[in-house]
Amino acid sequence: MAIREKVFDVIISCFKRHGAEVIDTPVFELKETLTGKYGEDSKLIYDLKDQGGELLSLRYDLTVPFARYLAMNKLTNIKRYHIAKVYRRDNPAMTRGRYREFYQCDFDIAGQFDPMIPDAECLKIMCEILSSLQIGDFLVKVNDRRILDGMFAICGVPDSKFRTICSSVDKLDKVSWEEVKNEMVGEKGLTPEVADHIGDYVQQHGGVSLVEQLLQDPKLSQNKQALEGLEDLKLLFEYLTLFGIADKISFDLSLARGLDYYTGVIYEAVLLQTPVQPGEEPLGVGSVAAGGRYDGLVGMFDPKGRKVPCVGLSIGVERIFSIVEQRLEALEEKVRTTETQVLVASAQKRLLEERLKLVSELWDAGIKAELLYKKNPKLLNQLQYCEEAGIPLVAIIGEQELKDGVIKLRSVASREEVDVRREDLVEEIKRRTSPALCIC
Amino acid sequence: MAIREKVFDVIISCFKRHGAEVIDTPVFELKETLTGKYGEDSKLIYDLKDQGGELLSLRYDLTVPFARYLAMNKLTNIKRYHIAKVYRRDNPAMTRGRYREFYQCDFDIAGQFDPMIPDAECLKIMCEILSSLQIGDFLVKVNDRRILDGMFAICGVPDSKFRTICSSVDKLDKVSWEEVKNEMVGEKGLTPEVADHIGDYVQQHGGVSLVEQLLQDPKLSQNKQALEGLEDLKLLFEYLTLFGIADKISFDLSLARGLDYYTGVIYEAVLLQTPVQPGEEPLGVGSVAAGGRYDGLVGMFDPKGRKVPCVGLSIGVERIFSIVEQRLEALEEKVRTTETQVLVASAQKRLLEERLKLVSELWDAGIKAELLYKKNPKLLNQLQYCEEAGIPLVAIIGEQELKDGVIKLRSVASREEVDVRREDLVEEIKRRTSPALCIC
Repeated sequence: MAIREKVFDVIISCFKRHGAEVIDTPVFELKETLTGKYGEDSKLIYDLKDQGGELLSLRYDLTVPFARYLAMNKLTNIKRYHIAKVYRRDNPAMTRGRYREFYQCDFDIAGQFDPMIPDAECLKIMCEILSSLQIGDFLVKVNDRRILDGMFAICGVPDSKFRTICSSVDKLDKVSWEEVKNEMVGEKGLTPEVADHIGDYVQQHGGVSLVEQLLQDPKLSQNKQALEGLEDLKLLFEYLTLFGIADKISFDLSLARGLDYYTGVIYEAVLLQTPVQPGEEPLGVGSVAAGGRYDGLVGMFDPKGRKVPCVGLSIGVERIFSIVEQRLEALEEKVRTTETQVLVASAQKRLLEERLKLVSELWDAGIKAELLYKKNPKLLNQLQYCEEAGIPLVAIIGEQELKDGVIKLRSVASREEVDVRREDLVEEIKRRTSPALCIC
Repeated sequence: MAIREKVFDVIISCFKRHGAEVIDTPVFELKETLTGKYGEDSKLIYDLKDQGGELLSLRYDLTVPFARYLAMNKLTNIKRYHIAKVYRRDNPAMTRGRYREFYQCDFDIAGQFDPMIPDAECLKIMCEILSSLQIGDFLVKVNDRRILDGMFAICGVPDSKFRTICSSVDKLDKVSWEEVKNEMVGEKGLTPEVADHIGDYVQQHGGVSLVEQLLQDPKLSQNKQALEGLEDLKLLFEYLTLFGIADKISFDLSLARGLDYYTGVIYEAVLLQTPVQPGEEPLGVGSVAAGGRYDGLVGMFDPKGRKVPCVGLSIGVERIFSIVEQRLEALEEKVRTTETQVLVASAQKRLLEERLKLVSELWDAGIKAELLYKKNPKLLNQLQYCEEAGIPLVAIIGEQELKDGVIKLRSVASREEVDVRREDLVEEIKRRTSPALCIC
């Protein structure tokens, strides 16, 4: 949880930096809301038992509830983030951060805007978050559903097979082109020529120069959809250059993304190398963030089919938790799970009342303070508690100190002790424990 | 959500001030874990559909999952908080902050400690949070299950009727003693004499002097359980005096609390008056925080029945959200839902690229900044957006400013504009929007 909170802090502060508000939706949706949105994966949806009332299911992601929420509240315009758990009846793979209950961190921009400005901001956000988290070098693959569809069309794939061929292409990050081609020909009934033609395209990746090259491609540039996609990507690269992140982005024709609802630009961030520390197992983490444009989903929930164009991203936090956790373990770095600044202790017996009075004064002054719940704890036990919990300071009360109107303030790390006048104690604790990053 | 976050901030910072760590448990538990823990209310538990695998239910509160977690991980000692949603198949009453999905904010101290020190801290925490939230004057009623049981025994209630008579007593905050007596005699089969005897006790409330008076009560002080409860309450009041909160606490013999698992001290905070502002409906909010000691619950989940004594509290945040929301509405105070410090704007056309460059510079410097997603937005529309979203500053780019190397910084409230050198812009925005409460 301590690691989780640190990761969330980075993500939330980035979402807020980009002007997003936060929304929340219920953990369950009407069963019918989720029906027909996830293709084959619908079998992984958790249903609630029918105990009377509506038929409900646990949410499978945050995007469909967001689209339902926009349509229901007739919102045409919002920039929001949502961090919450989603549920899948899947086989968990705990070492890779895959669970049946897991967090998603979504940021989406809904509304009718000029092309590619919100899309570019989504990519900027992804880069800012992955850089801040310091989980290693990364690359963001970008493609566009319209380019894929146009490419399939000019290669001679029948319309009805676009989605299933898209799924085959999507496997190229895990298996070789030969295997993908075999699937296209053997299982999905393409001719080897059509498959090879697709292969010529999807094995290409590069920067804006590849976009320009394909804009010159006599066949592809004649396809209306592909042309729109390519022109938008060109514009996107312009904006990404202004945002200073073009070097992180790769136009990759093999990126297809599984979900049906994408309609335009799609993207996926991958770590370039797993952060291998001595003694650490390399992690097969795959993608750590992804997203894209989905202009048709909200309309599916509106009685009049009114569309609200959307573009968004999702950070794969469970995988990121695994990476950060494993790295900290390798470094043998202990993560504090509390923030206590000072333990109120006593060296002699019969000072419980004085300890209670002092700890209460500290709480009321906003200091994070604890005391042992014993009438007469031994000083050694109190110091040990600080060592274990990582508490940096001990405020020690003794008979003599009480007479002199002082408190002995001990640094746990250096074992140095100084007498501090009781009225100065709060300021002294604040001074010694103020976070270094405060820049006012 | 903006109000929710503010309330959570107050609560979490208090929990951390008292040295708590945070834990999380899954939203579902094995069905059998929840069985037999909630008495009559078990019918309100949401079950998941049997789709193969374990039979699961949605959690009904956070206390039973906490006890299950302690037993499962063999923990004998923890101070934790947990803020999460729980689920009840209930009739929602939205104006009173009652929903089928709602948040609980729990703080608990588990472990074998010297008497009443953790219990006193729980009451201190409750008082600190309710004071910080500024939702009006409040009172914390305190009682002890052992005093109630001892009282029932000496009044002549048979053991088997303790819990059901306890439920009758619990209604005294809503209905008159006459009605409660009628229920005890008419429905639950006590003689009028026994009921009257109970009535003599449960209509009393007061401070530590009432504790001392009852310690002199010839019958009650002969009952072992009651005596233990009274002596502990006396000690509790000593500690509460040291914590400076004894004046907020009322020893109230009618406080019984519904849940079965309490074994010692119990408490419940009520608002003394609903915060009525002009034009605001008074709210029937009832209790806003409650808790108590439950020393037997963890043992129910341990194969060897090992007990871990626990004491804790739960803040009724949904009711608090309602109160805060209603008050802000009455004050016609608009709550900002974003934290954006500055809008990057332009006065002329064809400056999208310059806006993108500047907003990117600001994001990279940690400034919360937005721009309109239009190529050539009108200045008026940009200023209107700031008014609506409560953004305090506008950074305006123009041809002349670009030549001069400055940005026009406009205060939305005062409409004053000054030219700021581009390299000083970040510092100037920070200076103008730094929160007043930063005390380093």
